[in-house]
Amino acid sequence: MKTIDLAERLARFSDPWNPRVIGAVNDCEVKLARLEGEFCWHSHADEDELFLVVEGRLRMRFRERDELLGPGQLIIVPRGVEHLPVAEPTCSVLLFEPKGTLNTGDVENERTRRELERLE
Amino acid sequence: MKTIDLAERLARFSDPWNPRVIGAVNDCEVKLARLEGEFCWHSHADEDELFLVVEGRLRMRFRERDELLGPGQLIIVPRGVEHLPVAEPTCSVLLFEPKGTLNTGDVENERTRRELERLE
Repeated sequence: MKTIDLAERLARFSDPWNPRVIGAVNDCEVKLARLEGEFCWHSHADEDELFLVVEGRLRMRFRERDELLGPGQLIIVPRGVEHLPVAEPTCSVLLFEPKGTLNTGDVENERTRRELERLE
Repeated sequence: MKTIDLAERLARFSDPWNPRVIGAVNDCEVKLARLEGEFCWHSHADEDELFLVVEGRLRMRFRERDELLGPGQLIIVPRGVEHLPVAEPTCSVLLFEPKGTLNTGDVENERTRRELERLE
């Protein structure tokens, strides 16, 4: 029950594609991540995923089209939908998704993060 | 899978204490609300509730202390905890909470909203 300042939490880390958990709401977690350039195509079988841009620009690529987001804009990627997040060139996002959602979804690669740091 | 611009959605309504639903993420809903002055003391028996301030200032009062939030700051109120949101003097918030969460929680009064408008 303490105020969480997004800029203050973001200032605590700099590595891209390594989300930090900043809180929990029922069965979901709130995360912050720094993104840089292109991620990898993936989908989440059972989890919808919300991206809210805090700073910078995020292109969310789908197989058929793109969406371009800036600060104060969010997008919800439904479960099962392939997506490729691309920061142009960097951005910070707040993520809202069920606990245990894996950052690379159905893909396992060098960017997969199973144990996320918690920023209290 | 469309970009949702928070400022654009907020521009579509002006009445305070009447949350609009702007999206769903698994079992949770994303809402926007305009707040003005003091709400009412209440708690939610089964739902945690996240408030992210988009504009203005929000004082979240608890029985023992307060938290004061501005834009880019959030607070998570755990289930069962009595709270009183107070906008100073107005603010806009993004809410993240389970579907069906009643705005006045365990209290029924003239501000209770059972049917929320959806802003597509």
